[in-house]
Amino acid sequence: MPTSKIKNDLFLRTLKGEHVERPPVWMMRQAGRYLPDFMKLKEKYPFFERVQNPELAAEITVMPIDQVGVDVAILFSDILVIPQAMNCEVQMVPGKGPFVPNPIRSMADVERLITPPAEDVLSYVMDGIRATKQMLDNRVPLIGFAGSPWTILCYMVEGHGSKDFSVAKGFCFSQPEAAHALLQKITDITIDYLQAKVRAGADVIQVFDSWGGLLSPGDYSEWSLPYMRQIAQAINPLVPVILFGKGCWFALNELREAGANALGVDWTLSPEKAREIVGAETVLQGNFDPSKLLSPIPVIQSEVNKMIDGFGVQRYIANLGHGILPNIPVDHAKAFVDAVKNYRI
Amino acid sequence: MPTSKIKNDLFLRTLKGEHVERPPVWMMRQAGRYLPDFMKLKEKYPFFERVQNPELAAEITVMPIDQVGVDVAILFSDILVIPQAMNCEVQMVPGKGPFVPNPIRSMADVERLITPPAEDVLSYVMDGIRATKQMLDNRVPLIGFAGSPWTILCYMVEGHGSKDFSVAKGFCFSQPEAAHALLQKITDITIDYLQAKVRAGADVIQVFDSWGGLLSPGDYSEWSLPYMRQIAQAINPLVPVILFGKGCWFALNELREAGANALGVDWTLSPEKAREIVGAETVLQGNFDPSKLLSPIPVIQSEVNKMIDGFGVQRYIANLGHGILPNIPVDHAKAFVDAVKNYRI
Repeated sequence: MPTSKIKNDLFLRTLKGEHVERPPVWMMRQAGRYLPDFMKLKEKYPFFERVQNPELAAEITVMPIDQVGVDVAILFSDILVIPQAMNCEVQMVPGKGPFVPNPIRSMADVERLITPPAEDVLSYVMDGIRATKQMLDNRVPLIGFAGSPWTILCYMVEGHGSKDFSVAKGFCFSQPEAAHALLQKITDITIDYLQAKVRAGADVIQVFDSWGGLLSPGDYSEWSLPYMRQIAQAINPLVPVILFGKGCWFALNELREAGANALGVDWTLSPEKAREIVGAETVLQGNFDPSKLLSPIPVIQSEVNKMIDGFGVQRYIANLGHGILPNIPVDHAKAFVDAVKNYRI
Repeated sequence: MPTSKIKNDLFLRTLKGEHVERPPVWMMRQAGRYLPDFMKLKEKYPFFERVQNPELAAEITVMPIDQVGVDVAILFSDILVIPQAMNCEVQMVPGKGPFVPNPIRSMADVERLITPPAEDVLSYVMDGIRATKQMLDNRVPLIGFAGSPWTILCYMVEGHGSKDFSVAKGFCFSQPEAAHALLQKITDITIDYLQAKVRAGADVIQVFDSWGGLLSPGDYSEWSLPYMRQIAQAINPLVPVILFGKGCWFALNELREAGANALGVDWTLSPEKAREIVGAETVLQGNFDPSKLLSPIPVIQSEVNKMIDGFGVQRYIANLGHGILPNIPVDHAKAFVDAVKNYRI
């Protein structure tokens, strides 16, 4: 699917390093829980039904394009479809988050995991991409995503969300061979999955390393970076790859060298400091504090202007530094998007 | 109480910038849940009874001196005694953590909070310090601590633990005057409280800014740093002050300039990078990943050596980068302490 057909190609041109009129803007988790229309669907269908039904996923994916005016769509899905495809059961407990009834705790557990062709076992995702592309009708590009192998390991081993994922880290530190075997299995199926997503029509791939920032720089180089690199290098010949490691300010240059076309940053790094670390040539994405969308609208506008001043207009994708929160009023989300669109140098 | 009487004064000499034979070592949360003797007391007495009974608090405080061999004692207590003293109820729900039934959400709520003399309302803490000093018999120095005003606000407003404290942040961003009034009230009583602790015998004060790293550098300068500064400058004429902001690598120089005699760092910053940021003259404390104590003992030993190599022997206090975890075997904790004691250049 040639991307040149896409009408609003600001995002794709930015990823290529081309000169743009203004930064493109989207929001992580933009297809979700702050939108009243999403909440209606949430009441009707359980979580994984919304993920697994291609028409529902497409409808949710397109919502923020129409309702908030973002420049990019990102497929409504979940990073934990990968453990499910590997035959590791994941439940979504309302109000509590993911729950893995039989977490991975040994080499034997790792060996029992399967890596079937993603095209077969996750065909509903590819159907969702095709349905979304049809609904989008080339208005904006579509991002497909996956979790980083380290972040997926965190859930598969810990068994649920955690402040420190100390069980998952303890597994790596006490059974390093089993942990690396698990990471490699996750990496293999993730590459296959992302290649299938691109074939189905994803224009860009983003990898979310949500828990990379729980590791020390040395441990990041051992437990996350090598697998991020494998994924980036398998996918970046096909489409641009954005690597986002939350809390991974210390690994920005390593992630760029691993093959990222753009790097996500969170708000614990000032835009100026991020530029100082990676230089002017690297495409950066971020980094508005999602909680800050609770500020009065004039404050949101001035903070967005400061953020763009700091990153610069070129080689920059305006975004939040993490997913949008459920309690953000829609008009505040829209004020964020509009402030980027109205930015004047 | 002249500190010169203390037999093991490695910690105090390090804080003064004096030359030492080896780095002193202690562990955040060392008086606690990984020790079998602590668990026996935990079964017998509810959390706040252990905190409020001076003899129990002293017994728990001294345990790791005898059982793990650390160079420093830190009073067994909790940062949330401050909201309690302000007449904001805090419960400790077993297995869940702190719970505030009536969280602070408005200026009227802030105005209702009281700031009575700490010596009266928290007299049990001062009694605990006196009891501990007696039990320690000048073997090692004793640290008294408090939470940072920002971190205390997080709990008082959010009402419970949280991954992002978005309600607390939303309170600051949407009601900045009320938030600053609350921070000032917390700061006032905290200073009074820490001065009373010093009078009771605390040799050093540490301030824990556990949630400082949830803020952007700009917001840290507004919502946490000014209050940390007030505390440091009120206490450092009396005893040395250690400021520890978890995730606050971006504010290390600002915290030193605020009046810290030493700075705590977590493991997301390599020892070399921490030194690069603050220079050789600043006393640093940290930064072993608590989860890494689940590694085999020889790995703990080699990682401790690497850590001390990175920080250097002088102007350095060996510690974890956050509290010790409940699932750490005691012999692993002891291996950490012994590795520091056996470090050879």
